[in-house]
Amino acid sequence: MLLHLSTWSEIEQFLERSRTIVVPIGSNEQHGPTGLLGTDWLCPEIIAHQAEKSADILVAPTFNIGMAQHHLAFPGTISLRPSTFIAALGDWIRSLAGHGFERILFLNGHGGNIASIEAAFAEVYAEASFAKRRAGYALKLNNWWDLPGVVELAREQFPTGHGSHATPAEIAVTEWAFPSARKSADYAPPIAPSGPIREALEFRARFPDGRVGSNPRQATPEKGEALVMLAAQSLIKELDAFTHEPVPA
Amino acid sequence: MLLHLSTWSEIEQFLERSRTIVVPIGSNEQHGPTGLLGTDWLCPEIIAHQAEKSADILVAPTFNIGMAQHHLAFPGTISLRPSTFIAALGDWIRSLAGHGFERILFLNGHGGNIASIEAAFAEVYAEASFAKRRAGYALKLNNWWDLPGVVELAREQFPTGHGSHATPAEIAVTEWAFPSARKSADYAPPIAPSGPIREALEFRARFPDGRVGSNPRQATPEKGEALVMLAAQSLIKELDAFTHEPVPA
Amino acid sequence: MLLHLSTWSEIEQFLERSRTIVVPIGSNEQHGPTGLLGTDWLCPEIIAHQAEKSADILVAPTFNIGMAQHHLAFPGTISLRPSTFIAALGDWIRSLAGHGFERILFLNGHGGNIASIEAAFAEVYAEASFAKRRAGYALKLNNWWDLPGVVELAREQFPTGHGSHATPAEIAVTEWAFPSARKSADYAPPIAPSGPIREALEFRARFPDGRVGSNPRQATPEKGEALVMLAAQSLIKELDAFTHEPVPA
Amino acid sequence: MLLHLSTWSEIEQFLERSRTIVVPIGSNEQHGPTGLLGTDWLCPEIIAHQAEKSADILVAPTFNIGMAQHHLAFPGTISLRPSTFIAALGDWIRSLAGHGFERILFLNGHGGNIASIEAAFAEVYAEASFAKRRAGYALKLNNWWDLPGVVELAREQFPTGHGSHATPAEIAVTEWAFPSARKSADYAPPIAPSGPIREALEFRARFPDGRVGSNPRQATPEKGEALVMLAAQSLIKELDAFTHEPVPA
Amino acid sequence: MLLHLSTWSEIEQFLERSRTIVVPIGSNEQHGPTGLLGTDWLCPEIIAHQAEKSADILVAPTFNIGMAQHHLAFPGTISLRPSTFIAALGDWIRSLAGHGFERILFLNGHGGNIASIEAAFAEVYAEASFAKRRAGYALKLNNWWDLPGVVELAREQFPTGHGSHATPAEIAVTEWAFPSARKSADYAPPIAPSGPIREALEFRARFPDGRVGSNPRQATPEKGEALVMLAAQSLIKELDAFTHEPVPA
Amino acid sequence: MLLHLSTWSEIEQFLERSRTIVVPIGSNEQHGPTGLLGTDWLCPEIIAHQAEKSADILVAPTFNIGMAQHHLAFPGTISLRPSTFIAALGDWIRSLAGHGFERILFLNGHGGNIASIEAAFAEVYAEASFAKRRAGYALKLNNWWDLPGVVELAREQFPTGHGSHATPAEIAVTEWAFPSARKSADYAPPIAPSGPIREALEFRARFPDGRVGSNPRQATPEKGEALVMLAAQSLIKELDAFTHEPVPA
Repeated sequence: MLLHLSTWSEIEQFLERSRTIVVPIGSNEQHGPTGLLGTDWLCPEIIAHQAEKSADILVAPTFNIGMAQHHLAFPGTISLRPSTFIAALGDWIRSLAGHGFERILFLNGHGGNIASIEAAFAEVYAEASFAKRRAGYALKLNNWWDLPGVVELAREQFPTGHGSHATPAEIAVTEWAFPSARKSADYAPPIAPSGPIREALEFRARFPDGRVGSNPRQATPEKGEALVMLAAQSLIKELDAFTHEPVPA
Repeated sequence: MLLHLSTWSEIEQFLERSRTIVVPIGSNEQHGPTGLLGTDWLCPEIIAHQAEKSADILVAPTFNIGMAQHHLAFPGTISLRPSTFIAALGDWIRSLAGHGFERILFLNGHGGNIASIEAAFAEVYAEASFAKRRAGYALKLNNWWDLPGVVELAREQFPTGHGSHATPAEIAVTEWAFPSARKSADYAPPIAPSGPIREALEFRARFPDGRVGSNPRQATPEKGEALVMLAAQSLIKELDAFTHEPVPA
Repeated sequence: MLLHLSTWSEIEQFLERSRTIVVPIGSNEQHGPTGLLGTDWLCPEIIAHQAEKSADILVAPTFNIGMAQHHLAFPGTISLRPSTFIAALGDWIRSLAGHGFERILFLNGHGGNIASIEAAFAEVYAEASFAKRRAGYALKLNNWWDLPGVVELAREQFPTGHGSHATPAEIAVTEWAFPSARKSADYAPPIAPSGPIREALEFRARFPDGRVGSNPRQATPEKGEALVMLAAQSLIKELDAFTHEPVPA
Repeated sequence: MLLHLSTWSEIEQFLERSRTIVVPIGSNEQHGPTGLLGTDWLCPEIIAHQAEKSADILVAPTFNIGMAQHHLAFPGTISLRPSTFIAALGDWIRSLAGHGFERILFLNGHGGNIASIEAAFAEVYAEASFAKRRAGYALKLNNWWDLPGVVELAREQFPTGHGSHATPAEIAVTEWAFPSARKSADYAPPIAPSGPIREALEFRARFPDGRVGSNPRQATPEKGEALVMLAAQSLIKELDAFTHEPVPA
Repeated sequence: MLLHLSTWSEIEQFLERSRTIVVPIGSNEQHGPTGLLGTDWLCPEIIAHQAEKSADILVAPTFNIGMAQHHLAFPGTISLRPSTFIAALGDWIRSLAGHGFERILFLNGHGGNIASIEAAFAEVYAEASFAKRRAGYALKLNNWWDLPGVVELAREQFPTGHGSHATPAEIAVTEWAFPSARKSADYAPPIAPSGPIREALEFRARFPDGRVGSNPRQATPEKGEALVMLAAQSLIKELDAFTHEPVPA
Repeated sequence: MLLHLSTWSEIEQFLERSRTIVVPIGSNEQHGPTGLLGTDWLCPEIIAHQAEKSADILVAPTFNIGMAQHHLAFPGTISLRPSTFIAALGDWIRSLAGHGFERILFLNGHGGNIASIEAAFAEVYAEASFAKRRAGYALKLNNWWDLPGVVELAREQFPTGHGSHATPAEIAVTEWAFPSARKSADYAPPIAPSGPIREALEFRARFPDGRVGSNPRQATPEKGEALVMLAAQSLIKELDAFTHEPVPA
């Protein structure tokens, strides 16, 4: 089920059979000469929506703007500051937990979000911890590329030049989902440089076309499809395991 | 152009021919027995994406979670507090203005967002005002139902029972865009009550099935299509007028 | 009763016979060549204090500094940012609700406050909504010029050149209350321009003497008196209706 | 000059002859069986307005709600939290400094405000300090009872039972200014207890009628008048000294 | 006991015999030509750790970075803004109170912290006050130089040139504790100037070598030892009195 | 050099030869039956202070209270919320960068801090990124156990039962530094369980004595000494490499 295409009473019914929900979360930021600005929120959305087709899972709307301050020197990037991100994610969590969701899995598409997601988890957990009460819900972060089997497949598909930003894997996923939005460019150098990530202007000076360590030319819609199908199945299993994970009394 | 399906260099090129962008903004909240939870962010997204098909305009990703605290007693609603909303919208605006966008039009789908959007505008303008410098950008709020001609069409389509929440107009729009997600229910009473809006539990006590003043049974995909087509054309004209609005030196 | 001229035990006794309070709220900002900087907080204060003379109502101190970022390019304006405004109004509301006030009516004197007041209402209501508990109090915003009958009288008094800032109506009210502070000036043009309101420097460029759409020369103390007397009686009725408004269980 | 009864151009002219302004600041809180809830903001307002009658000084509107969390168990008290207070006072200061005021003197009427006022000063100064630039303005806190000569007069008037809250001195000031609001009560014991001040419920348990160490029965309008006249003259001298205080280059 | 050298179960046991804890709190900021940057947090730490040797008291880790915005123009100073300070101290207090500590004494080493400490106290107390519940804990601020007898000893040791920043007393304390870190310099003038404290650049212009009113040359390790021994004994008595201070029901 | 035992002019001189500083950062939280509450801030402090003995590096005071909300159910834990942590670390960074430090290395002792540290880095970098200016400084996070060679030594010393909280490695470090504070206990089971980390009460239910996956009995002061000596040398090399890391123009 897609939450946004459901009614409140359908969600009420869903809550009678499951207390688990998955939230796609990403970022809207430059992805090199050919990557879509939406790549990092589209990938988890594509995977979660694919998973939803073959399992009785509930998918929330996508948290589409993440923590991407280092990409702000490239047009089209939209970023929350970490403090804003934490406040916003907290309100999402408080809303969902208030309805009775007890397992909230965030399927993440952006490495730069990880710290802010974990900080946001701690911020809401801390309300319970300071008050000496149980939270009543469990939060989980899964990067889609870390779902069981996915990194192995990506490594097999892209033995070199996978890199860490504007990777052929994520671009392949969007090429499969949005074939008409496929772009091409000459990459120079073929594999982009790597290095530390700091503020936006330094980032652009260090990574002039926006890629980090990657060669996106290797992406194809077919590879993207394989990644999506595998990730979707892995996500279903993760949600199942998360749902049945025992919680100490 | 859809920003999220573009590359950063495509946006860089767009900025050479236009400094205007439209941001669909809404809310994810209960919409009565048959309305989709996503109604308020889907409607402006549908209209903006429709407009983009026939004009060289740029559409940002959708700000999909709004200020809906009063709907939190119905499962599936996700809400930001106004303070979170203001912080988040501020970061969107600062990101876009930083890239050189000088006219940012928010196409809004949720009445409950209006105050928080205007407060957010004032919050970012205030940075310039306190610093005694020009902002360099103009912000504009358009509710989709207030686009020229739309309210007249809706009144013609739904002379009674339009109401103010879970309206037949907004439900018709989503029925056209997502025909397979069309729902039906017995409405009792046919036209929902009206009254003041306060916190969530009072809201649910006052409006037991979530509707306010509306009779959504009148919605049809065909009426939705007419609304979308008209609103899309109006939006294009609004963007054009906004783009050419003179700014005092 | 004026709260600030009462003792705590007098308020304790008042709470035994009524749970309603009115809070004048405005702004301290430029009002054109002849309008007082205090106009927007003086008007609701004058009206509420007038009402208090003929009815057993309780008037709180005046919230005198509002959201006026757009007026900051004119000397004497003092403004809160919306986020500060929301925090401050929230603490006022929490204080009053904590004493048992169940109906808090804000009599507003500044259009620019409306969004921030409504956002503040939602911010405090949200505490109850997220916690799934009833708030226990109801908040209401009344602009003094929207009190029943007032706009009709103003339209009759000022058929043209009423405008939206530094209006003859509000200036008339202060002329009646502070006759010795009456000012005069040559207005050029007689009726000020209108247009969108953004940050402070653009505002001053667009509205060079501070007025928006108004011709304040039409103000007289006598017209002000008529407005105050009518508004005061309307306020008393509004408070009565608000007090007796049924709340769903 | 009273700022709120002036126009923006009158303030513009004032700024050509002086860069100094005084802001009355206080609190709205219980003041024992007979003290007015407004005592702490009325006293500095009364004194500053008195001073304004005999000197060319500029008086801002009164910051009337202060930090009074410890009084919240008594009806009628309205309090900001320190963090809200700091944000609000900061916006006042930024507004005034933005207009060119270089000396801002806060005439304070509430001991409980002192820490929050000084913290607010440091908060705005810190903006300059972190940015390694000069602030361009100087802030000063004067409690009205600490103005030269005032404490000596109060000690002479009230050799015993002055205390620290609901003091006969502050009550005398309001009795002079608002003779028709004079109250009486039996005080038991005549001199209230003293002790540490913590949260509101402990405060009320420790100080059952709200007074701290005081015997307000000694207040008379005549003593109030003497205090006001002396304080007003002292304030004028303080403002003059502050205006001419040299600032290192 | 030093909390940081204890285990959680040792603290659990301590809480069975005492509900009191002392927290050294200070600042890391310039202290003139010869004073250590750590002076203001080292002094209370030294005194509290000395006291702990002869009494069964519990000493928390040191809150070592305080509110020192005015010293930021001198290298090595690290400062929190007041708002940050209040948030941080609040979390310390909430953590300790959550474990059952009912008396938390802050032994302070920096005058510039006083306002922010008191504001922080009020901020956490306000949570109870707004919620109409008892806090359950008492907070107390003691500046080490105000401990009974200490100021008299310091006055005797340094009849002139004690001043208010980089005082010979505080420097003597660190000279005793860190003899190898003793510094020397020519002071010009011997006794530093005094004056108001504002933002950092003005501070440095007014107090070129960082001292305020002091002649630190008078410091010796022996005088420091006498101060520490006396202060440690006074602290033990203060803690005992605080522990046994009656609280109203 | 230890910053807190230096004068401001010594730091001024240091800045002429180096723009690099190391800040020990940790947490004060339960560490199982025998681990010190201060373990996580003592370890990086011990290592950095050891390194300082043999190299011309500058060590800041220790950021001793971290993000430890999940440990709050064990007495003695003191935690900042992530939002407070980010604000506080931000002020440290702004203070140091303001003095001209261009490389700030945080030597971290607590895994639970990592997300909040990285979020804090992004928060301060974002100020530059939104303003389209270079930050002028680089921030780096090194966990002490990840310094080159350290994890290999720890694995050799503790082939099983190292775990992730209250590890024998960190306890060994404090045993070497504080031999008199060495504790002993019967561990049951010898190796603690592992599992996800959420809010405090769930944590204590899941990890009853506070350990996670570890067997601290294996700790000895000798092993601690070896770890410290190796880590100190690695830190010096890291600082040197960080200092000489090229930055793109």
